[in-house]
Amino acid sequence: MFGLSKRSKYAVNVIEEQDHIAEKLVRSGKKVIRLNRGDPVAYFPTPKYTIDALVKAVKEGRTGYSYHAGIRELREAISERHKRLYNLDVSEDDILVTQGVSEAILFLNSLLINQGDIGVMLKPFYPLYMSALQINGGIPMTADYADDGTHSLDTDTLRKKLKKSGKRAKYLIFSNPSNPNGAVIERRALKEMAEIANDNDLIVISDEIYDEIGFNGAHFTSLSEVSRGIPTVILGGASKNFNATGLRIGYAIMPEGGKESNEIKRKLPDFAKMRLSSNTPSQYAFAQSIRNAKEHSSGIRKMVKEIESRVNFAHRLINESRYMQSTMPRGAFYLFPKIDFSQLRIKTGKDIATRLLIEEGVQITRGSGFGAPGNIRIVALAPQDILESAIRKIDKFFIRHSK
Amino acid sequence: MFGLSKRSKYAVNVIEEQDHIAEKLVRSGKKVIRLNRGDPVAYFPTPKYTIDALVKAVKEGRTGYSYHAGIRELREAISERHKRLYNLDVSEDDILVTQGVSEAILFLNSLLINQGDIGVMLKPFYPLYMSALQINGGIPMTADYADDGTHSLDTDTLRKKLKKSGKRAKYLIFSNPSNPNGAVIERRALKEMAEIANDNDLIVISDEIYDEIGFNGAHFTSLSEVSRGIPTVILGGASKNFNATGLRIGYAIMPEGGKESNEIKRKLPDFAKMRLSSNTPSQYAFAQSIRNAKEHSSGIRKMVKEIESRVNFAHRLINESRYMQSTMPRGAFYLFPKIDFSQLRIKTGKDIATRLLIEEGVQITRGSGFGAPGNIRIVALAPQDILESAIRKIDKFFIRHSK
Repeated sequence: MFGLSKRSKYAVNVIEEQDHIAEKLVRSGKKVIRLNRGDPVAYFPTPKYTIDALVKAVKEGRTGYSYHAGIRELREAISERHKRLYNLDVSEDDILVTQGVSEAILFLNSLLINQGDIGVMLKPFYPLYMSALQINGGIPMTADYADDGTHSLDTDTLRKKLKKSGKRAKYLIFSNPSNPNGAVIERRALKEMAEIANDNDLIVISDEIYDEIGFNGAHFTSLSEVSRGIPTVILGGASKNFNATGLRIGYAIMPEGGKESNEIKRKLPDFAKMRLSSNTPSQYAFAQSIRNAKEHSSGIRKMVKEIESRVNFAHRLINESRYMQSTMPRGAFYLFPKIDFSQLRIKTGKDIATRLLIEEGVQITRGSGFGAPGNIRIVALAPQDILESAIRKIDKFFIRHSK
Repeated sequence: MFGLSKRSKYAVNVIEEQDHIAEKLVRSGKKVIRLNRGDPVAYFPTPKYTIDALVKAVKEGRTGYSYHAGIRELREAISERHKRLYNLDVSEDDILVTQGVSEAILFLNSLLINQGDIGVMLKPFYPLYMSALQINGGIPMTADYADDGTHSLDTDTLRKKLKKSGKRAKYLIFSNPSNPNGAVIERRALKEMAEIANDNDLIVISDEIYDEIGFNGAHFTSLSEVSRGIPTVILGGASKNFNATGLRIGYAIMPEGGKESNEIKRKLPDFAKMRLSSNTPSQYAFAQSIRNAKEHSSGIRKMVKEIESRVNFAHRLINESRYMQSTMPRGAFYLFPKIDFSQLRIKTGKDIATRLLIEEGVQITRGSGFGAPGNIRIVALAPQDILESAIRKIDKFFIRHSK
């Protein structure tokens, strides 16, 4: 019996939606400014000590399978990192190394979601939260960030929604700092989220892959600092803070949180067993990146300062356009401007993404995949001259397609 | 609402079931002979040209995200490999690079299986075929290898089973050469399988990760040589033939096979988009491994010769035991002896695996995860002295636990 599964329609990622067009343009000799993928490596090279550690691991022949949950050295380094930064006490047995945070999110949804279960996410959300939930038969519930520039969270409405849902909600997931809107959740709001989760028997999944990339006065709080005793999963990895997206190493930390946490800790690694191992040499490299705390600390400080200046530059330029309005990010490296469609002849974000790429050679991501069809996402990692050129092209594009 | 999903009970892999015990034993200073994971790198180091290519890619800074479907260089090399070995015409657009064959199998099941759909597999099977199917709500149907030493396949019975199932079967999957029993499917039988698939609207998924590891007179035929026009997916990767298990690079080839093939080709990459990228430097390394065809060809010839002698040595020794009976493998590097439980006080394969590890420091895999609870799987990659010591320990263990 031929035919694709029903769930497969949820396997989508808007971030790479125009990639095949971009590839073709590049192959035909056209210049494309790619502001769609959040890849720091494109502009901030992987640190030398990471490269050296990777080369060393490879030369030592560490190219065989490794332990399904990750090599001990890496899990120890991760545990030390979270002790150092957030005073979190976890052992290496509380940590699962995954093929990027993406794999951890896919595993967690497969582990937790039954047909019809609800997954709660802050909106706008990272696209994979939605697709991983829906692929597993889950139903989304969202809690919106305020659109007034404060990025505050309306927890009263969330409580009401949860009450109405009648115990079908399974977890609350968010990225903090947020991809795509750059919000950094205040300590008090985070605490409130943990309390809501506790009152509603939810597991809290906090994706902290950008935890060292805060700026514009942001003070980042890890969920683990305010959720002691509540079932939580903290996600992190090599990609963003450590400039090593292409190594595909992430992790899930499962701190002590009672019976439910123990269940997750017992069963989540079985999903990792199915695929035997993550990339082995990259795990040694990432362990070394974490252990090199002093060098890393000065490197990330410089990088974040540079990101802050690029993000703020792009933010200012975007808000000079008649067609875009962005709130000020305080973390990660994305801008998520609202598009004034009322002034445009173009009707959808998808049309913007496709035609902007073809007409101007600028690749951005439509907001609908993040739950915000009125916005677009722009990665602000490129140097100012490239950002300036790209944003001017975007504005020119909007002018050309205005009513 | 707390609780794990129903599907999560299917996330199991017997191959790593005793890993936590083995880790503890090793940490406490005990010696463990690990014959559970099929990792050639443990005894046949990754070739120097692969190591060099990996080092080069890393030093050149190729540590950022790469194209979701895999870098062009690698997909071109894979296409050339299958043209050279099997006269298969596929373009790089027909190839998806995955994080090991495991990820391809997980994606394919997610793509194809609806609740209640049937997945057909040859038995004994690789454990992931079963868990990936069941996690997605699928129901297994098996076609047994003959147990008489010939490893022949009873296609009449398969046809009858399929007829009875009433069009609910979606695909036929097998590994060839077979993990765990070392069978290499004869050209005629393979052709018959393709015909059965065609008559029953099944997609054929042929896992050919061991395609260059055939011996004892085996002549390997790729499914792609006998299935022209039938919807097929050919799986392969860096792990086994290329001695690079820890790089986690696999691939799925989708040759021309009509409408259904086009649907798979269109949609399968969307699953890869969700996790953005495979490990980037490892893709460059694998591309180089394939391109180095001449050196590879002489290297693999030597390795297969050595594997043949180790497998045959282990085979002879196993069959000298009163408690084990193995058929002769002709590919891969596993022995899958039947255990005579009637002579033993131990009742299950799980008990054998656990107690053999604790009592004798030998780690093997129980057969029940392969659909054969009466067997155990032994990896025959170690040098003869280690194999000899391990098999003697296994025999000693059985003697001690005999009735």
